[in-house]
Amino acid sequence: MSMTIDEKTRSSKNFFNGKGRTTDECLIIIFGGSGDLAKRKLFPALGNLMFKKLLPEKFKIIAVGRKPMETKELLAMGKYPAGFEKFFHYLQTDYSPAGIAKLKNECDTICRETGIAPNYLFYLAIPPQGYAEVALALKQGGMVHPPRGANWCRLVVEKPYGKDIESATILNGNLLSNFAEKQIYRIDHYLGKEAVQNLLVFRFANSVFEGMWNHNYIDHVQISHSEVLGADDRAEYFDQSGLLRDMIQNHLMQIFCLVTMEPPVSLSADAIRDEKVKVLRSLRPLDLETIPPVAVRGQYGAGTVKDQPVIAYRAGKNIKPESSTETFVALRMNIDNFRWSGVPFYLRSGKRLGRKGTEVVVTFKKLPRILFNRGEASLNSNRIVFKIQPQEAILLELTTKNPGQSFELSDTSMNFCYSDHFDTSADAYERLLLDAILGDPTLFVRSDETELSWKYLDPLLKNWGSTAMGAKFPNYPAGSEGPAEAADVLIHGEEKTEWLDFSRYDNVCPPASDMPKG
Amino acid sequence: MSMTIDEKTRSSKNFFNGKGRTTDECLIIIFGGSGDLAKRKLFPALGNLMFKKLLPEKFKIIAVGRKPMETKELLAMGKYPAGFEKFFHYLQTDYSPAGIAKLKNECDTICRETGIAPNYLFYLAIPPQGYAEVALALKQGGMVHPPRGANWCRLVVEKPYGKDIESATILNGNLLSNFAEKQIYRIDHYLGKEAVQNLLVFRFANSVFEGMWNHNYIDHVQISHSEVLGADDRAEYFDQSGLLRDMIQNHLMQIFCLVTMEPPVSLSADAIRDEKVKVLRSLRPLDLETIPPVAVRGQYGAGTVKDQPVIAYRAGKNIKPESSTETFVALRMNIDNFRWSGVPFYLRSGKRLGRKGTEVVVTFKKLPRILFNRGEASLNSNRIVFKIQPQEAILLELTTKNPGQSFELSDTSMNFCYSDHFDTSADAYERLLLDAILGDPTLFVRSDETELSWKYLDPLLKNWGSTAMGAKFPNYPAGSEGPAEAADVLIHGEEKTEWLDFSRYDNVCPPASDMPKG
Repeated sequence: MSMTIDEKTRSSKNFFNGKGRTTDECLIIIFGGSGDLAKRKLFPALGNLMFKKLLPEKFKIIAVGRKPMETKELLAMGKYPAGFEKFFHYLQTDYSPAGIAKLKNECDTICRETGIAPNYLFYLAIPPQGYAEVALALKQGGMVHPPRGANWCRLVVEKPYGKDIESATILNGNLLSNFAEKQIYRIDHYLGKEAVQNLLVFRFANSVFEGMWNHNYIDHVQISHSEVLGADDRAEYFDQSGLLRDMIQNHLMQIFCLVTMEPPVSLSADAIRDEKVKVLRSLRPLDLETIPPVAVRGQYGAGTVKDQPVIAYRAGKNIKPESSTETFVALRMNIDNFRWSGVPFYLRSGKRLGRKGTEVVVTFKKLPRILFNRGEASLNSNRIVFKIQPQEAILLELTTKNPGQSFELSDTSMNFCYSDHFDTSADAYERLLLDAILGDPTLFVRSDETELSWKYLDPLLKNWGSTAMGAKFPNYPAGSEGPAEAADVLIHGEEKTEWLDFSRYDNVCPPASDMPKG
Repeated sequence: MSMTIDEKTRSSKNFFNGKGRTTDECLIIIFGGSGDLAKRKLFPALGNLMFKKLLPEKFKIIAVGRKPMETKELLAMGKYPAGFEKFFHYLQTDYSPAGIAKLKNECDTICRETGIAPNYLFYLAIPPQGYAEVALALKQGGMVHPPRGANWCRLVVEKPYGKDIESATILNGNLLSNFAEKQIYRIDHYLGKEAVQNLLVFRFANSVFEGMWNHNYIDHVQISHSEVLGADDRAEYFDQSGLLRDMIQNHLMQIFCLVTMEPPVSLSADAIRDEKVKVLRSLRPLDLETIPPVAVRGQYGAGTVKDQPVIAYRAGKNIKPESSTETFVALRMNIDNFRWSGVPFYLRSGKRLGRKGTEVVVTFKKLPRILFNRGEASLNSNRIVFKIQPQEAILLELTTKNPGQSFELSDTSMNFCYSDHFDTSADAYERLLLDAILGDPTLFVRSDETELSWKYLDPLLKNWGSTAMGAKFPNYPAGSEGPAEAADVLIHGEEKTEWLDFSRYDNVCPPASDMPKG
């Protein structure tokens, strides 16, 4: 890929977001304001939005936390535009009625003194156990506006939204007792990634592919996420939850929905989310008796990552020495609808796999064994690859003829690397924070989505959670491609289906100049 | 495009040509051996083939001509591998019985002295008026082996194959009186171009596109060829023939056939040519009464090409001052078969258009006016572009999302530039000469193909040839996009169809390092 053609033909189009939209004046109130997420992600994202002049003309940021803190200290980790501190301050308080009263008092004062209308964006960058408490306290403290009132309030929450269908339902119930669904913005920061948003554009703004986006043309889809890191400093949390909860239930399921959903009636948030919900409702329930198995789990042992020896998961700090928590999952999914009948979707994710990346690989049906595809080796199938991170790219793998005195063929790929065309340094949090301020919930997760995802995975969670099953861990060395048993979930047609190497598309685009994101 | 993936996955495949094939020892006899084509194209191509060790172990090249000549002089224009001269000599003779007897004597002597088997490749690099005479002389001189004999002989001929259906039929009859069809190799050097050969691979080695290669997905196809040059040193010939005969009847029709043909039963030469013939037989006959018109012609007037003033066609040397010869053709074609029902094919070619190039642009159907495609401007359709020359490339024009706080879309293209991946310096003649030596007629034109093409264009040729029609020439200035009337042949759907700018894809690939070919 080396050029943009549109200069010659038309100006680009601008849709339902961003510059064209108006941002209401508001207060941005960040709970967990002294925490890691706030300092590393949220404040810098707000700083960038201010620098890009995308924030409202009138706004204030209140970082709320229990610890005594200095504003300077909070902003030490990022680079901020001049004057950012003027719009930002820290408020030490707790979530008791008195604490929330203190917050309300502060907000009232600011609104009175600055004339800012009392629109509230509450961002819960706190452990999820606190969500219900804060939501209730805000409601009781009189800070939750009615959904159709003159002023708005929105509650942004971070994953995890529960740890199973029961707890997720309870959490949603608690939030919905105090906020309306349309006031709740459940963040999945993968939805803020450019390449994820581009899934929608790729599918619905290009006639060439939407026509093939079905079981007539597509053989199977692999969605892969791999990490170099182990459980590390999140070990205590991770050992309780495991990879299925940490990556699959949310991020990969969201990507899966965008790849598979029907065209929405419109680009409105609910039209898109309605279609994602329809896919989730069309999932064939996971039957653990199915042969071959629908899922395989793994846990890493000691090994070598990037030439460094690393210890086994169970040897990690804050990990139970006999832990049966999975650090790897391979999963086969089927959608029982007209579009996807007979097409397996393979999801795979693991820690300590030697390289970091997220990809969606759509493999088209094999060619008949005729013409160029005769002989011992068969031609590779065509594939469309969405590289989500660290580089963002779209690839089309094709077979072409080598020039010269023969009909030698080889595989090549046509690549669209975002970094070749655009400045992609914007973080997913920038996009999502702005959307929350603008009141656009398109890229946030609705309660029914998260509950359906939990419900779908419930048989696995229950099964893996039961000690009776006693996983035979570790079953893959750190730095490998995961357990060999991952291949057990694959269904074979006339030819064998194989997991693609995690690193297969690593060198397609030039390395991103900025640090890998999230 | 930036990489080749196959290293990781499989070695390339080698089909029915080239290295795997064995070349029989033979004599390569080039009539018109002192002429321009021989010196500029054929001898250098043979030199390159020798350098690449693709010629038979035992061979000799005999350049035959009427003029007295020195071998050195003949080879002065090219760079040849060491020892090439040892295999090459010039024979001065004519095409009379005595002249051909002299040639046969020479051949016999060589075969006796060197032990080379008397396999003959006759290459007629002479004016087509001489074809019948030479064919007959060779036959009468005893140099034409029976088709299934112990030794072979092949006759390679250059276009034009006649000037209309009547003369083409007569020429074919003359050749076929002396050679069998399978001994006759009609060169269309466009078929030797990498990007043209790749049309077959692209279509039949990639499941992703073959599934969309029909009227359900494709809106229309534009095949365009443009030249910077005027009639120039070929003026006398050109003024007699015109552009329809010079470019459309042969080169563009061949490309058209490869784009549109059904999958062949096999990759054998006749299976492929059978399918090309089927397309030609399915062409809707040109009806000059059709409205809008199926064809528009043009002739350039004075103008400016690359900042240089150029004279009108009629002002050129060796051109009749009132010439009604067309230097531009726009043509609408329809194929009445299941695959292409309702899909117009637009061919366009002209001289003195300000830039040189050949492209096939396949435009997919428009998106419905929903989702991303609402509003005043509509999104561009997806397109697949085969750039044939000067650079060779495949492009896919897509719509993607611009990164950032919005859903701004723009057109981009994914490009596969041959020069990024391969050394594409081989000339079309290299490929075609080797194929002729190997006895592979796949990339040569069968008699029925050329006759059907003449027959199809016959109404236009007759009409334009009749003085009664008196073309209103000149109707476009040199350096322009051709006559405005070219747009008359376009059929419009819900939205207007337009000719794409000739230069639209000019800067997609880096400029070829070698000179533009053919």
